[in-house]
Amino acid sequence: MSITAPDTPALLPSYILGDWWTPQNPSKVSPVADANTGAHLTDVSTEGIDTAAVINYARTVGQKSLGELTLHERALRLKQLAQYLNSHKQELYDLSFATGSTQKDHAFDVDGGIGTTFTFSSKGRRELPNANVIPDGAVEQLSKDGSFIGEHVYQRMPGVAVQINAFNFPVWGMLEKFAPAFVAGMPTVVKPATPTAYVTQKCVEMMIASGVLPEGSIQLIAGSARDLLDHLDYRDHVAFTGSAGTANTLRQHPNVLTGGIRFTAETDSLNAAILGPDAAPDTPEFDAFVRTVFQEMTVKAGQKCTAIRRVIAPAEHVEAVVEALTERLSSRVVIGDPRVEGTTMGALASKEQQSEVAKAVRRLVEAGGHVRLGGADAPTGDADAEAGAFFAPTVLSFEDARTPEVHSVEAFGPVTSVIGYSDIDDAVALAALGSGSLVATVATNDGETARAFAAGIGAHHGRVHVLNRQTAKTTTGHGAPVPHLVHGGPGRAGGGEELGGVRAVKHYMQRTALQGSPDLLTAITGQWHPGAAANTVTREDVEAGAATHPFYKSLAELKIGDQFASGLRTVTLEDITAFAEETGDKFYAHTDEQAAAANPFFPRRVAHGYLLVSWAAGLFVAPEPGPVLANYGLDNLRFITPVTYDDSIRVTLTAKRITPRVTDDYGEVAWDCQLHNQNDELCAQYDVLTLVAKTWPMPEQPAED
Amino acid sequence: MSITAPDTPALLPSYILGDWWTPQNPSKVSPVADANTGAHLTDVSTEGIDTAAVINYARTVGQKSLGELTLHERALRLKQLAQYLNSHKQELYDLSFATGSTQKDHAFDVDGGIGTTFTFSSKGRRELPNANVIPDGAVEQLSKDGSFIGEHVYQRMPGVAVQINAFNFPVWGMLEKFAPAFVAGMPTVVKPATPTAYVTQKCVEMMIASGVLPEGSIQLIAGSARDLLDHLDYRDHVAFTGSAGTANTLRQHPNVLTGGIRFTAETDSLNAAILGPDAAPDTPEFDAFVRTVFQEMTVKAGQKCTAIRRVIAPAEHVEAVVEALTERLSSRVVIGDPRVEGTTMGALASKEQQSEVAKAVRRLVEAGGHVRLGGADAPTGDADAEAGAFFAPTVLSFEDARTPEVHSVEAFGPVTSVIGYSDIDDAVALAALGSGSLVATVATNDGETARAFAAGIGAHHGRVHVLNRQTAKTTTGHGAPVPHLVHGGPGRAGGGEELGGVRAVKHYMQRTALQGSPDLLTAITGQWHPGAAANTVTREDVEAGAATHPFYKSLAELKIGDQFASGLRTVTLEDITAFAEETGDKFYAHTDEQAAAANPFFPRRVAHGYLLVSWAAGLFVAPEPGPVLANYGLDNLRFITPVTYDDSIRVTLTAKRITPRVTDDYGEVAWDCQLHNQNDELCAQYDVLTLVAKTWPMPEQPAED
Repeated sequence: MSITAPDTPALLPSYILGDWWTPQNPSKVSPVADANTGAHLTDVSTEGIDTAAVINYARTVGQKSLGELTLHERALRLKQLAQYLNSHKQELYDLSFATGSTQKDHAFDVDGGIGTTFTFSSKGRRELPNANVIPDGAVEQLSKDGSFIGEHVYQRMPGVAVQINAFNFPVWGMLEKFAPAFVAGMPTVVKPATPTAYVTQKCVEMMIASGVLPEGSIQLIAGSARDLLDHLDYRDHVAFTGSAGTANTLRQHPNVLTGGIRFTAETDSLNAAILGPDAAPDTPEFDAFVRTVFQEMTVKAGQKCTAIRRVIAPAEHVEAVVEALTERLSSRVVIGDPRVEGTTMGALASKEQQSEVAKAVRRLVEAGGHVRLGGADAPTGDADAEAGAFFAPTVLSFEDARTPEVHSVEAFGPVTSVIGYSDIDDAVALAALGSGSLVATVATNDGETARAFAAGIGAHHGRVHVLNRQTAKTTTGHGAPVPHLVHGGPGRAGGGEELGGVRAVKHYMQRTALQGSPDLLTAITGQWHPGAAANTVTREDVEAGAATHPFYKSLAELKIGDQFASGLRTVTLEDITAFAEETGDKFYAHTDEQAAAANPFFPRRVAHGYLLVSWAAGLFVAPEPGPVLANYGLDNLRFITPVTYDDSIRVTLTAKRITPRVTDDYGEVAWDCQLHNQNDELCAQYDVLTLVAKTWPMPEQPAED
Repeated sequence: MSITAPDTPALLPSYILGDWWTPQNPSKVSPVADANTGAHLTDVSTEGIDTAAVINYARTVGQKSLGELTLHERALRLKQLAQYLNSHKQELYDLSFATGSTQKDHAFDVDGGIGTTFTFSSKGRRELPNANVIPDGAVEQLSKDGSFIGEHVYQRMPGVAVQINAFNFPVWGMLEKFAPAFVAGMPTVVKPATPTAYVTQKCVEMMIASGVLPEGSIQLIAGSARDLLDHLDYRDHVAFTGSAGTANTLRQHPNVLTGGIRFTAETDSLNAAILGPDAAPDTPEFDAFVRTVFQEMTVKAGQKCTAIRRVIAPAEHVEAVVEALTERLSSRVVIGDPRVEGTTMGALASKEQQSEVAKAVRRLVEAGGHVRLGGADAPTGDADAEAGAFFAPTVLSFEDARTPEVHSVEAFGPVTSVIGYSDIDDAVALAALGSGSLVATVATNDGETARAFAAGIGAHHGRVHVLNRQTAKTTTGHGAPVPHLVHGGPGRAGGGEELGGVRAVKHYMQRTALQGSPDLLTAITGQWHPGAAANTVTREDVEAGAATHPFYKSLAELKIGDQFASGLRTVTLEDITAFAEETGDKFYAHTDEQAAAANPFFPRRVAHGYLLVSWAAGLFVAPEPGPVLANYGLDNLRFITPVTYDDSIRVTLTAKRITPRVTDDYGEVAWDCQLHNQNDELCAQYDVLTLVAKTWPMPEQPAED
């Protein structure tokens, strides 16, 4: 790699109201420099931007175009978007070097952002309905006769999702917020941090160029957001990532305080890594621990909200940790321009950051910190720390583990403090002095130690990463938020929650309780509720040719509430005995009259639950080839009234939930299945899960090789 | 009923640090009067209270004593508490009359509070694990080899749950917050509103007297909370119910703004009732609608956060609604002291409230409201509105449905405004002018209308109540929050969420992501994870007497990870054919070689999924009577690799989750069940749910008659 100045616009454009926009002759601009060389890159200004129009455009055009797609359709667009970005990511790499990021750092920002987008695409389609309403939890019976029921649904919020991002992850920071908001159906307004806004701008340019984003679903304010919050209210969502100070300023905006803006903050915190008492210097956990701290100090030059600021080790191992860590940092870190071959750690994002980090290190030293490596004025090798924002890896140690500055002063760079603890309770108390953190690592190979730490520090953290010999190589790392798990934390960490799979989609939706009759809640949710009207056909109807078995209806024909009702079939003692013989399930409740009667739940010998569900399939099945392609599972099977010999059973099967797949010729149909006996007592209920063709016969498939 | 002055203390005591406390010679007290007669009842003061000690006591003693119980044990205590209160509720009734409440109102406050406590008890034990950690959602594979996984758990917050309540529901308002916090394991500090604090104080007295609450789990600050919030931080939870103004003041406290207090508010809102276009005056929906508005105006004299302030009717039916409503109010409301026979509506809670409501009515009239019944100075029948805080039911109508005051001025009494709409979009827009509400009622018998309204107004509301002829008699009502469903709403309604079954318990817990190896996450959560170590016994071990089948272990002996591994059993074509014959399940995939092969998912004829699970039971079963009493269901059954004839299957069954019931001699055990074929491919997986005796043999049960 050689140093080539990236191709950046003279004045960074915003993307608003469906078009690119730059201020005309702004009176004031913020210059942005290459973090490594100090060379001027671009100017940033949003002077004269019409933020009210931006919000109005999102609330009208954006809400409308996104609302025309279902959750699955939007999720599929995300996949197409991620594919497009993936095929153009070299451009983002090339540009990002100027922020101080190495190729390895790009894996977190660029690839991490694209990977997160892919994950939301697949989770959105796998775990959410192909609809616009997401049911939440069970239906509640609110009247004895079943005529009045209640349930919860999520619906997208009717406003705009504003994201205000930090400088350290210009791509991931945008995409991890954009993806779930997009699946939810909320239009996004992106406000990147000025020092790296040119990378975000390039990524937005690609997102527009991909052609997959509906009109109004994304806008970019490349620079100050100005009076944006003045136009927001309870319909809108603001997700902030950055310093606790800025978060507090935003929280005091009247529209957050009293206007009901849904505000969430993720702020950097003084995250801890704790070496377990068992993880002595000769254990694999000790090595993994040191590698983890090294990684968190050097990736993005330590500029991560999740980086390890506090290393908490058994008092007797503090020196061993300091030694191993400083040795590794001294021998492996090559500071420099990431475009220069051999560089392993680039510059901080700006000269301002460099000066902030130096200031914080000086405060820590004044508070009693011993500089064990680096320091505020330490040399940075061949890297020119005058021109570029370079900073040497710095390890401090403290005699007094309760030095307040250790737990409150954050040096947002390659800096960590090492302190000692006496026992697990002490370590838990020290971790809690951070007053709420995004993540903590606990290195231990002992189950009881892991349990004690998780119980002690869990409620102070958004994420707890347990590191041992089994996970040393396979861990996704202390610092990397994964899209599957929540990111955020209480207290100092901002009190917010992002990511966490489809949980994040629901952050952009309102949970509403619905109450009413089964018929009307069926109409609202698009899912059939027991007690609602059904379109019933019986076996006799089908055999007489008077009706179509619902299994012979394709997704195009099938309707929620289509129902098949079987006749009764009697279970004899011989049936039970034969089933026991054939399956091998000779549990005494099926084979020993006296023992069965002594069981608290059975009157005498009873049919196997497995016999009941097998017979139920025999009672409801439509045997000829048709649109129902397979039964791929059962959910929530409960046996209620036992069935003994000479009882009879009948089955009622109702199309409950229809989920066409956006990428296949078939979809999923969940059938509500109820088994009753001859006295109309409910014997079993469950959901039968099937794959059903969209049309029948299915279109010809290309032959497989 | 006759008027007897309730027996109230001269100076209302608080309950702090495990004892009753009153200030010594306070320099200033707030006098509290009987709402109906104006007679002096008691004085309120918290002068000199040590709020720091209150918080410290809760965080130490309360957290400790609650932490010694499991979720189920705490939930069971709630049942005992509710039973105690239920047997003493006459005292609460007697006292509550003085607040202006009628016997019918007591059903909402006293019985509603006790019922909510019962519901949290049963839901806590039915829907949560008998542990202290609540897993949330699926386990996520984070490495290809399965050595690194992630999941979420809820753990109780490590601080105190402070509740700041409104005057209108002195019993329910406390218990609906106390119950979920208690199940979660957080100690509570109750701060009631001064005008009705004497009722709350009496209820707390009973709660203490019940003897079932662990030390420190409840404290009462009977009066001003003073500097309480100064001592709170991110470990603590503050739940506020009351006016939007007070909520906004609290939100600006530094410990809420920047200290990370988890703050939730439920404020009164301008809730709407919408008459559907189909619900013309001759329909059952019209009658149900008028009855609902009547009910919401008169219960608690309209002093409910959820009361209907805006009646939105098709323009052509506005006059019919006004007529029916005023007719019903005129003929049925008897205002007076609830202790006087025949009274149907009591006084407002205080003279201050009476004056506030009159002021609000005057503002509405000035804004263009026509008084159709009642009014600010209307007579209150035989009730003395000088001495008592009586107010006449008041109906206003407006020509301009968009009069801003209709959607912003709240008269917190028996007052409602009627406006007209042109079509559904217009009605949706009018409802949204409330800027976020707790609840709306939609009266319609048409599915498409219900769907359109829910889609339009859902995200502006915490609850949508659909009313039709089927639910007119069985509804729990527009205004009554039920413990099963969330209570709260966006925007003006405060942006908070309470209740909603076990969702409410989780409001008092921190959701934390855990990452690590299956072994260590098993140790932390107490639930076995695939990939974690297992204590395996085989069929041969069991038959050789070398090991105990896990089904022969009682809950006292069984451990998470106890595992049974079967040998292989071969499936023949004859087996499949015989199963098809016996069950009647002759689906072509099991019976027709050519058709099966043409199916996209099957290689040729395959075994029924039901055959596989039936045989699996035969492979894992322990047939003799033992501690496993019954298989009560299956969860999450998925068929993965098809099993065709001449394949063999084996089953691995592992104790995954053990839930002893606190009230029975048995508990629930969920077994992870995996079926593999002869090539070690996974064919099916599911959870087998069993009931297992705590000890074996079980203790003798008293014989049933």
